[in-house]
Amino acid sequence: MGTGDVFDPNCPTRVVLDRIGDKWSVLVLLSLVHGPMRFTQLRARIGGVTPKVLTQTLRAMEQDGLVTRKVFAEVPPRVEYALTDLGRSLHEPVSVVARWAEQNITEILRAREEVS
Amino acid sequence: MGTGDVFDPNCPTRVVLDRIGDKWSVLVLLSLVHGPMRFTQLRARIGGVTPKVLTQTLRAMEQDGLVTRKVFAEVPPRVEYALTDLGRSLHEPVSVVARWAEQNITEILRAREEVS
Repeated sequence: MGTGDVFDPNCPTRVVLDRIGDKWSVLVLLSLVHGPMRFTQLRARIGGVTPKVLTQTLRAMEQDGLVTRKVFAEVPPRVEYALTDLGRSLHEPVSVVARWAEQNITEILRAREEVS
Repeated sequence: MGTGDVFDPNCPTRVVLDRIGDKWSVLVLLSLVHGPMRFTQLRARIGGVTPKVLTQTLRAMEQDGLVTRKVFAEVPPRVEYALTDLGRSLHEPVSVVARWAEQNITEILRAREEVS
């Protein structure tokens, strides 16, 4: 397979599109772009995320080759998460979307109020 | 409120981020950028979407001020969906992410195989 086609229901880009669009994945990406972080640091940075959801998000991103999980043999063991090259390449697309959300939130909330 | 902060759990950008990252919203956006479309046309273009999910997606996008729904008094009545200016402004950010997914799908699938 060369490139995918998001309009083809059988193309796996569909699944990827949903996963990379997930807000938690986006927030992990935006956090890790500055360098590796430990689980507790990520949790503190990403307000409101539960440990369970953060674990699931990191595992999914690891499976997709976006994030690496590195265990350092210390006492207690230190675990660090970092972006792969692939993960880093997704940072710019994703931050463009996040910036759009931040810049247009007022207009979206206004639209919602008009409806209700 | 000026601009939002996606890292703030109380900021509504969070909800918006999830909604605009949703694959069906992305596919509707990418479809409507060429001009207004009827429900049946959208359904045909977006392979694999059920009528129920497409209806929900369009309604949510209408509420967020991204899409307009216009009913023409014909027999049978014609209903057309179109992007608003806000919706059009989201097209570029979203297509950057979709393009990334299409271009990197092979690498992601390879990463997934290595894990399992």
